[in-house]
Amino acid sequence: MYFGGIEAGGTKFVCAVSDKTQQIIEKISVPTTTPEETLAKVFQFFDQYQLLSMGIGSFGPIGIEPTKDNYGYILATPKPGWAEFDLLGKFKERYQVPIAWTTDVNAAAFGELKKGAARGKKSCIYLTVGTGIGGGVVIDEQIFSGIGHPEMGHMHVKRHPNDEYEGTCPYHKDCLEGVAAGPSLEARTGIKGQDLPADHPIWDMQAYYIGQALMSYVLTLAPEKIVLGGGVMNQDHLLMKIRQAFVEQMAGYMETPAVSDYIVRWGLPNESGIIGSLLLAEEVMNENVEAERRA
Amino acid sequence: MYFGGIEAGGTKFVCAVSDKTQQIIEKISVPTTTPEETLAKVFQFFDQYQLLSMGIGSFGPIGIEPTKDNYGYILATPKPGWAEFDLLGKFKERYQVPIAWTTDVNAAAFGELKKGAARGKKSCIYLTVGTGIGGGVVIDEQIFSGIGHPEMGHMHVKRHPNDEYEGTCPYHKDCLEGVAAGPSLEARTGIKGQDLPADHPIWDMQAYYIGQALMSYVLTLAPEKIVLGGGVMNQDHLLMKIRQAFVEQMAGYMETPAVSDYIVRWGLPNESGIIGSLLLAEEVMNENVEAERRA
Repeated sequence: MYFGGIEAGGTKFVCAVSDKTQQIIEKISVPTTTPEETLAKVFQFFDQYQLLSMGIGSFGPIGIEPTKDNYGYILATPKPGWAEFDLLGKFKERYQVPIAWTTDVNAAAFGELKKGAARGKKSCIYLTVGTGIGGGVVIDEQIFSGIGHPEMGHMHVKRHPNDEYEGTCPYHKDCLEGVAAGPSLEARTGIKGQDLPADHPIWDMQAYYIGQALMSYVLTLAPEKIVLGGGVMNQDHLLMKIRQAFVEQMAGYMETPAVSDYIVRWGLPNESGIIGSLLLAEEVMNENVEAERRA
Repeated sequence: MYFGGIEAGGTKFVCAVSDKTQQIIEKISVPTTTPEETLAKVFQFFDQYQLLSMGIGSFGPIGIEPTKDNYGYILATPKPGWAEFDLLGKFKERYQVPIAWTTDVNAAAFGELKKGAARGKKSCIYLTVGTGIGGGVVIDEQIFSGIGHPEMGHMHVKRHPNDEYEGTCPYHKDCLEGVAAGPSLEARTGIKGQDLPADHPIWDMQAYYIGQALMSYVLTLAPEKIVLGGGVMNQDHLLMKIRQAFVEQMAGYMETPAVSDYIVRWGLPNESGIIGSLLLAEEVMNENVEAERRA
């Protein structure tokens, strides 16, 4: 009997099964095309296994409030065919097992807390900086959501004094994602993020924005750890700049752990999401067993 | 037997006792001078009553992590004599009853959730806009804090295009508090907030900042209700402008309840904090009874 995990992303679905000790038995990656085509391949993979439960961390925005009709749906996404698609429903129909459902970044935050850079803590934020900027939150060892899941990448930010760029966000123009995600770096410099030299001045600007956002998250959520992941974080020098920007902007206002131990890179590079999804599968199975025991 | 509540503010300590049905029996206000003088009067008041438990909502920043040495202390405040003062300790020494300890704004958020504008909800944010800007957070009907209490008034904000003011915050200059609290209005206009006419253009600017901050809180904490209180909120026209600014800046990104029902004025004007403190006294007593029953 196995746990099934899915990191459902806009470009690929990473699917994995693990045994009861959470060793990954098999992992595949399916390109995200139409829902029908994508799910056919995903089902083919999981059909081979007897599943105990599943965990899905999906690209968003998604319906996350269990009492609402749109629970389990992918909501307003520009990705053709996926908007208002009942993703969770398709899995519930196919597999009669308990299924945990959350955002990809929440699953990653959970993975980092249980097995990665925030191991041993009770709360953490996971922020991914890549094509977009998204955040997941774990509080008291549980994924946090209120009337919706966090959308931390879309906060407005104080603009850097030397930055006149209008921003790439289709909703907000110059929100955090609009001025600090990969596409904004390329739009300003004409160079893709991964090809920008380490001494390019744009890194200071990006660190200024990300450090500022981390400060905002700390002032509201006060997590025990901040974990950074995603493509842009492969830039070694950036983490140092972000820590420095955080300290400078916080200006000693709130007591936090030493920044080198507080703002850290992911402990499960490129796997936080899938590992988190598998761990969520285990958790939802345990909850189910517990509920049946009580009933 | 009575519950004791204190809203410990920088200008006054509001002290009250309530009976078991939470009817307030007596309430006094003591000016905040030196700790010794202030506490002498506060003790004189509470000494008259047989207390079951107490709840204290204090001005901050305060030590709020029970495992830390500074738990119960007022931390770095410019208020003479109060920095690093063990306020909770003085009450624990004087009264051998369970005492709940939190920030004034957290107590207010709790009061608004249980008896005020957020009644019936499980989560809310309470934001007070006056001499300073502070926020309290209740999640799952419990006061929320992480490695510290929220300091939501000090987030950086995207500057209003027509606002060149440098800001009043001694730490951050133009953070939210620095550009939207009462003193910044007066510094820019030469007129005290309460005397500014309703058609003064500065209100649009202030609403822009507060609406933006609410958007940031919603993107991170996603509360069921946002309650606004404090001196500046006595300006009738301001609430409408804040709602409008919130909607404009959110740009439809995240689904929230209708704004007229979502962003509301306090339901317990000027009493959210003291009522919340009394309710926290009741809660800490119940927790204590439960713990003793189990032991």
